[in-house]
Amino acid sequence: MYGILLPKHRYRVADLEWRKIYLGKAKLKSSSLITSLLSGFALVALVEIGIESDVSPGLIIAFSVCTTLLVSVHLLALMVSTCILPHIEAVSNVHNVNSVKESPHEKMQLFIQMAWAFSTGLGIILFLTELVLLCWVKFNTKSLHYNSAAAWASTGIVIPVGVVFIVFAFHFYKKLIAHKFDNHERDLDALTRMANELDNHNESRIQTV
Amino acid sequence: MYGILLPKHRYRVADLEWRKIYLGKAKLKSSSLITSLLSGFALVALVEIGIESDVSPGLIIAFSVCTTLLVSVHLLALMVSTCILPHIEAVSNVHNVNSVKESPHEKMQLFIQMAWAFSTGLGIILFLTELVLLCWVKFNTKSLHYNSAAAWASTGIVIPVGVVFIVFAFHFYKKLIAHKFDNHERDLDALTRMANELDNHNESRIQTV
Amino acid sequence: MYGILLPKHRYRVADLEWRKIYLGKAKLKSSSLITSLLSGFALVALVEIGIESDVSPGLIIAFSVCTTLLVSVHLLALMVSTCILPHIEAVSNVHNVNSVKESPHEKMQLFIQMAWAFSTGLGIILFLTELVLLCWVKFNTKSLHYNSAAAWASTGIVIPVGVVFIVFAFHFYKKLIAHKFDNHERDLDALTRMANELDNHNESRIQTV
Amino acid sequence: MYGILLPKHRYRVADLEWRKIYLGKAKLKSSSLITSLLSGFALVALVEIGIESDVSPGLIIAFSVCTTLLVSVHLLALMVSTCILPHIEAVSNVHNVNSVKESPHEKMQLFIQMAWAFSTGLGIILFLTELVLLCWVKFNTKSLHYNSAAAWASTGIVIPVGVVFIVFAFHFYKKLIAHKFDNHERDLDALTRMANELDNHNESRIQTV
Amino acid sequence: MYGILLPKHRYRVADLEWRKIYLGKAKLKSSSLITSLLSGFALVALVEIGIESDVSPGLIIAFSVCTTLLVSVHLLALMVSTCILPHIEAVSNVHNVNSVKESPHEKMQLFIQMAWAFSTGLGIILFLTELVLLCWVKFNTKSLHYNSAAAWASTGIVIPVGVVFIVFAFHFYKKLIAHKFDNHERDLDALTRMANELDNHNESRIQTV
Amino acid sequence: MYGILLPKHRYRVADLEWRKIYLGKAKLKSSSLITSLLSGFALVALVEIGIESDVSPGLIIAFSVCTTLLVSVHLLALMVSTCILPHIEAVSNVHNVNSVKESPHEKMQLFIQMAWAFSTGLGIILFLTELVLLCWVKFNTKSLHYNSAAAWASTGIVIPVGVVFIVFAFHFYKKLIAHKFDNHERDLDALTRMANELDNHNESRIQTV
Repeated sequence: MYGILLPKHRYRVADLEWRKIYLGKAKLKSSSLITSLLSGFALVALVEIGIESDVSPGLIIAFSVCTTLLVSVHLLALMVSTCILPHIEAVSNVHNVNSVKESPHEKMQLFIQMAWAFSTGLGIILFLTELVLLCWVKFNTKSLHYNSAAAWASTGIVIPVGVVFIVFAFHFYKKLIAHKFDNHERDLDALTRMANELDNHNESRIQTV
Repeated sequence: MYGILLPKHRYRVADLEWRKIYLGKAKLKSSSLITSLLSGFALVALVEIGIESDVSPGLIIAFSVCTTLLVSVHLLALMVSTCILPHIEAVSNVHNVNSVKESPHEKMQLFIQMAWAFSTGLGIILFLTELVLLCWVKFNTKSLHYNSAAAWASTGIVIPVGVVFIVFAFHFYKKLIAHKFDNHERDLDALTRMANELDNHNESRIQTV
Repeated sequence: MYGILLPKHRYRVADLEWRKIYLGKAKLKSSSLITSLLSGFALVALVEIGIESDVSPGLIIAFSVCTTLLVSVHLLALMVSTCILPHIEAVSNVHNVNSVKESPHEKMQLFIQMAWAFSTGLGIILFLTELVLLCWVKFNTKSLHYNSAAAWASTGIVIPVGVVFIVFAFHFYKKLIAHKFDNHERDLDALTRMANELDNHNESRIQTV
Repeated sequence: MYGILLPKHRYRVADLEWRKIYLGKAKLKSSSLITSLLSGFALVALVEIGIESDVSPGLIIAFSVCTTLLVSVHLLALMVSTCILPHIEAVSNVHNVNSVKESPHEKMQLFIQMAWAFSTGLGIILFLTELVLLCWVKFNTKSLHYNSAAAWASTGIVIPVGVVFIVFAFHFYKKLIAHKFDNHERDLDALTRMANELDNHNESRIQTV
Repeated sequence: MYGILLPKHRYRVADLEWRKIYLGKAKLKSSSLITSLLSGFALVALVEIGIESDVSPGLIIAFSVCTTLLVSVHLLALMVSTCILPHIEAVSNVHNVNSVKESPHEKMQLFIQMAWAFSTGLGIILFLTELVLLCWVKFNTKSLHYNSAAAWASTGIVIPVGVVFIVFAFHFYKKLIAHKFDNHERDLDALTRMANELDNHNESRIQTV
Repeated sequence: MYGILLPKHRYRVADLEWRKIYLGKAKLKSSSLITSLLSGFALVALVEIGIESDVSPGLIIAFSVCTTLLVSVHLLALMVSTCILPHIEAVSNVHNVNSVKESPHEKMQLFIQMAWAFSTGLGIILFLTELVLLCWVKFNTKSLHYNSAAAWASTGIVIPVGVVFIVFAFHFYKKLIAHKFDNHERDLDALTRMANELDNHNESRIQTV
């Protein structure tokens, strides 16, 4: 029973390690997908939009700043993703428990989190802003008789959406932390139970000896 | 017979858990695909459409509201999908029955349902509205001699389609509920049968003892 | 021999079930691919085409109706696909014969057939019509000296193609039905043979007893 | 030795069947990929090209005919592919040798060949023609001083390419036929050898009896 | 020891065969990817570019020739790829060592090499030329005050890149040949060693007899 | 114990080799993805941007140089990737430890690193520059009243992003080197421990003899 107990325990630890690797991999992959999608649309919008000469200079500055920020943030996330992903994929393809320790995912954890937070968090907020600015540039022009109502309507929708977005992000983060805490507690319980079993086993072995 | 019975039962429970995980994963994946497709088309339409100066202001406001809502709804769905999918994928790649309990899919069930309902349900209804508004903006202009007939024809087609859509959604939901109810009933039957077998087995064991 | 016979038979039934699931899955996947492709092109055509002011109003109405129908039909197919596909995929990933019975593919058979027929059948016919209408809108204009010959040539090609299409669809359907009939007959033969074997086996067992 | 011989032979026949299925599947898949690519470009060219008013009517008719043919041919190939592919995929996923006989790939062989020949053969020839016509429409206009030299140069390149294309297609077809003939001959040799071995084996068995 | 030796040797030969098949498959796949990408961009450039009337006729001829060549070369590579790939894939899916001999990859080796060399070698050189011609057409116009400096700068960058490209291609080819030579030598060594072992084994068997 | 020790050690070495192969493969794949994405956007920007006649000649030269460099760098990376990837994939599909030595990944290490560094490092820096130049070309024009503030804002954002980018690249490189050093040290430790065990084992064998 002693021999079976330990490998099982070690297996669980390896399992946890693998899960962390797969989590990092999935996060980087999904962040690079969103990244290429959203920054691509922002760029196409920058190149193809025809800005009329009566658009206020401040709006153009805001549009320029937002587009540049959006593309920069996504490029940073993309770079982090292309730097770390190959190393994680190389390790996860070998299917050897020992090689898990040689994966850079532990040391690069901060960068992975940053890339993911940048592309999903900051990136989506910036994209919503870009959408509002596009509506202002497109509708508040002389040729459409300065239809600022359309632009205000768009702004009025994006603001509650942004609030829902932040609330969800906060709620999700809280649930995730609680979920992690639960898992850690269960792991701790399992460890203490295992330690007790080992003690009992040793004692009974000593007694039988 | 007793030893084989229990693991089989436990296997079935694990099976059910796995199916829930795969269902959540498939739902999030398909919702993120539709999301990127439909919101992409809406954005391209917003950037590239040339709105003529004689389009009524109310129509422009409606177009602005619809596009913003469409993109916002899809971005929310996309965000939910990128937040939860990596955690589910990390768990479903480890292939360990115990790790199923550590997946956040159970606690996040509400968000998964919401993301999926948003992108398929609300998203498609909004897209049909966008299509009708595009026809009005495009055809009811001075250069095409205010061809409102074309715009009305488009509206006349979308309305029955929308009704069919809602009827299907309702019908599908009812069938799914009935289907789930059937499964639960079958599961309950299996459990009671199993409990009876155990009782008989124990009794016969007691008698043989 | 008796013990081997039955599981083999049961295996064949499970096999048939699996094939139905995979068929439904493949149909939904291919229908959603065509759907996104063709409706995407129709939408881009609607947004980007520059319709000149001398195009006849009737043509514009036809174009509007055709585009709306095309996009609606494909959106319906897409919705059916996103509703049912996750459930089928969840079942087909568990790889447990018992879970086949819990798949909704049997009850949703009608919807799957409808989604597939809509996107391949009606969808392609509508797309060919859209192509002809695009040629009329593009070529039969003042700037090209009302080049109706080009538009008629396009129409003249699409009509025989449409006929070939319908003939193929009919022929394919007939062959498929004949093919299914053959399979059912073979299954029936196998069942009667199996029943005879069982009878013989039982008789010989009775005789040996 | 007798018992091992036969299954091995049967295995080879199943292998051949599987190869035919995979070949049909791969052909349909590659044909549907080319199809969507080339017809997509043709459609974008039709919608987005700005034809000037001094382009000769004959050229416009040729352009209209070529585009319609190109899209029609590819849509036919796409339809054949979406009709047959799900049935083949359903069979190839079950991994049961007996189910091979129930695949429609044998009876649909003609359609598979047709879809593939249409999309690769006729489709590419039509695409090259479309390219030449695009050059004529684009370069032989008043605004570019009727630069027919550019159009002729393009035509002069496509003609030898078309010849190389047809020669390759002929050469490839001949090699494939020769290759199939070789395989059949080898199969026949193997069968006669097997028949001889069986005869010898039976004779030696008779002698030993 | 004799019985284990031979299968191992035969295994190695099968391994080599498989590697050749996978190499051909990977080459065709990567060539078809580049092909569709680069020829797609060239086509979009041809359809969407607005050539001004003061561009010199010679430049237009060069642009027309380069685009036609680029698309033709890629279509030829695409056709070769779609003709051969299904046959290779059908063989590589069966996973039977004997079927390797029936793959057309050996006889079609020349075509595979040609398709790959066309799409990567000639295709990229032509694409760089297209890029330079685009800069000339775009920048050396009256509306930009004949900014030939910008066009010359682009030309001045592409020329060294082209040289680096050819040097790399030469270097890569040399290394690959050396690498293949090494492998062949190692194979030969292994064969002679194996032959010696067999001789020794036979001699020792003769001596023991 | 001696027999188990050596294969385990050899297995570890093979593992390391496999990891290098997978790392090279993943790097080339991710570099070719970024490559096609970024160079595609640069090309579309070059073809579709409408440069006004009052843009300063120096800016146009800078734009021309940057676009050409960007596309050239990515094409070089793409070529390296298509040259080496098929050879690595062919080896990694055979799943034979001996074939690892025949992979060209070791000798081509320099090219792989170069392709990857070009597309992620130089490529992203050039893309950020392109973005700034696009803003200058688009916003600093007469029709927008020479809104240089918008262009300066964009430049002001990209500069710190570029610094963060370079700092990250440096930091990442340092961590990677440290990580590699750790692994090598651990490998060395394992080897010395193994050597000691072998010595002890041999000594004890000598003593027992």
